[in-house]
Amino acid sequence: MTTNRQIIFKSRPEGWVTPDTFGAREVPLPGLGERDVLVRAIYMSLDPYMRGRMDAAKSYAAGFQLGEPLQARVIGAVAASRNSDYAEGALVFGTLDWADYTLVPGGKGLRAIDPAAAGVPLTWHLGALGMPGMTAWVGLGFAEPTHGDTLFVSAASGAVGQIVGQIGRLRGCRVVGSAGTDAKVDFLKNDLGFDAAFNYRTAGPDILSALQAAAPGGLDIYFDNVGGAVLEAALDAANRFARFVECGMISQYNLTRDETPGIRNMTHVVRKAIRMQGFIVSDHADRRADFEAEMIPWLKAGKVKYRVDVAEGLENAPTAFIAMLKGGNFGKQVVRIGREP
Amino acid sequence: MTTNRQIIFKSRPEGWVTPDTFGAREVPLPGLGERDVLVRAIYMSLDPYMRGRMDAAKSYAAGFQLGEPLQARVIGAVAASRNSDYAEGALVFGTLDWADYTLVPGGKGLRAIDPAAAGVPLTWHLGALGMPGMTAWVGLGFAEPTHGDTLFVSAASGAVGQIVGQIGRLRGCRVVGSAGTDAKVDFLKNDLGFDAAFNYRTAGPDILSALQAAAPGGLDIYFDNVGGAVLEAALDAANRFARFVECGMISQYNLTRDETPGIRNMTHVVRKAIRMQGFIVSDHADRRADFEAEMIPWLKAGKVKYRVDVAEGLENAPTAFIAMLKGGNFGKQVVRIGREP
Repeated sequence: MTTNRQIIFKSRPEGWVTPDTFGAREVPLPGLGERDVLVRAIYMSLDPYMRGRMDAAKSYAAGFQLGEPLQARVIGAVAASRNSDYAEGALVFGTLDWADYTLVPGGKGLRAIDPAAAGVPLTWHLGALGMPGMTAWVGLGFAEPTHGDTLFVSAASGAVGQIVGQIGRLRGCRVVGSAGTDAKVDFLKNDLGFDAAFNYRTAGPDILSALQAAAPGGLDIYFDNVGGAVLEAALDAANRFARFVECGMISQYNLTRDETPGIRNMTHVVRKAIRMQGFIVSDHADRRADFEAEMIPWLKAGKVKYRVDVAEGLENAPTAFIAMLKGGNFGKQVVRIGREP
Repeated sequence: MTTNRQIIFKSRPEGWVTPDTFGAREVPLPGLGERDVLVRAIYMSLDPYMRGRMDAAKSYAAGFQLGEPLQARVIGAVAASRNSDYAEGALVFGTLDWADYTLVPGGKGLRAIDPAAAGVPLTWHLGALGMPGMTAWVGLGFAEPTHGDTLFVSAASGAVGQIVGQIGRLRGCRVVGSAGTDAKVDFLKNDLGFDAAFNYRTAGPDILSALQAAAPGGLDIYFDNVGGAVLEAALDAANRFARFVECGMISQYNLTRDETPGIRNMTHVVRKAIRMQGFIVSDHADRRADFEAEMIPWLKAGKVKYRVDVAEGLENAPTAFIAMLKGGNFGKQVVRIGREP
């Protein structure tokens, strides 16, 4: 462990992310100052919001710096420490480099794994129990789901969507999902207990018909992860007083304003008295204890399941990220960088 | 008064309303059955939502029937009555025909004028104290305005917009309006006390620059009456946690789905954690007493002013309606059908 592999932000993408967006380098491991912690990465989380951090325009997350390592949520083990809060070998989370190792000055921003969650697979701490799971839980709260509501979630087999649908069922909703392959649709119906699901790609231009067939009574809640044509269909299929949770719009992230096919049926928002609530989960960090109090028992009891898509090796992280933005992942995307202890 | 002039819904418009949409006829006055009331129209309200009632597609208001008289909110005088609740000569509101007279079976749906509002001009009962005023008051409530918020309202000199801006000022907001002529812009700034206003038509394609110049600190609240390009600019200019009140989208009502330029920057809803609330004022009829308790004193004290655009004569109602949909009115549009008592 005398050198450290890093993936750097080589060039800013215009439109789709490409292999040219990324560079690789090896650098010497730095020495540790007082209270510094060196973390060895085990699993790294890849999430769609990271695309926004690649744009020069202001995003809600601080932008990535060109020529510097990209960053992500990582779960790792303390490899060296001059900080009594973090013993060598301890498992920790942090927003760390796309790298084998990250030096964390003063241990700032690290967080130990919740002992209450012992026994939950390590990768789930980046998903069901991590930012995506909390995103699902906080976001669905805005929609105030009640027994008998029809809930539609897009990107339903993804990191957030899986949890949205399963919480929805636990709250008594009829749950409908969309996904981009037939295998994902089968997974939603057969493994996660969705009431209905459809493949938005094979639905072709008529997403609305597929949605209406899956939700003949209309939508009371739409949890939006994709924006674009699916959002338009959801507005058409919405019932009066529907609640739209605007969590993400992955179909838009790689398009310029002029390339973007706009939403043409916003008049439904008025006519159907729809409420749309956008949110960023980091604004709701104070809800973490409440989230964990509900989610950890669900996970331990098997009431909420979670599928993870593991890419092997730091060197494959760029390919996995590019594929994820096109829906190539099946479940929450993580990268295995090092061995579990 | 042996015959009655009526304006009928002759043909359904595709796109813009035209003179061919309307027909005129004279019919004999009907006899009155027990409890029936015959109302002579004095002022009739023309409102943009009525365009939606001309479409075959479901709107929130029941559709107009082809071959039958169009309907509108009307203030009138009881011309004949077999109903002890409505004496001859009494002033009443109702949803009545575009006509000199309407027979109201059983007096159903009529409402007497609130005595507390005596002294307020009769036309204001269709505007500041009517559906448009209550729309402004209820809608702005969704945005939870607080002192120091920047509030932007479109169609700001219109029936609803005038009230929105003035309530906003009374709530301590900095108020910015857009309108379609320089005279309207002057009216907003000089007569209604708006802090800033701009002409969206002369702003040309760069509505955003005009909006940013008028609201350099960004928008905390957008009260949307128009949709389309102004909504897109408001999303661009919005601050984090902005509240959008979706009241109407008059720029869209005469366009087919394919003609509609969509909203291309909905990702701001996510990134800026924007809440959009659509509403229909008739869902909030239970708030009328609270609305009147606040609005009547404001009107009587001159704290809220109201400009009315009066078209003269039932026969000119179609022309006035067509002009209103293109922004030709200056203030709340009404039609004077008969003399005040």
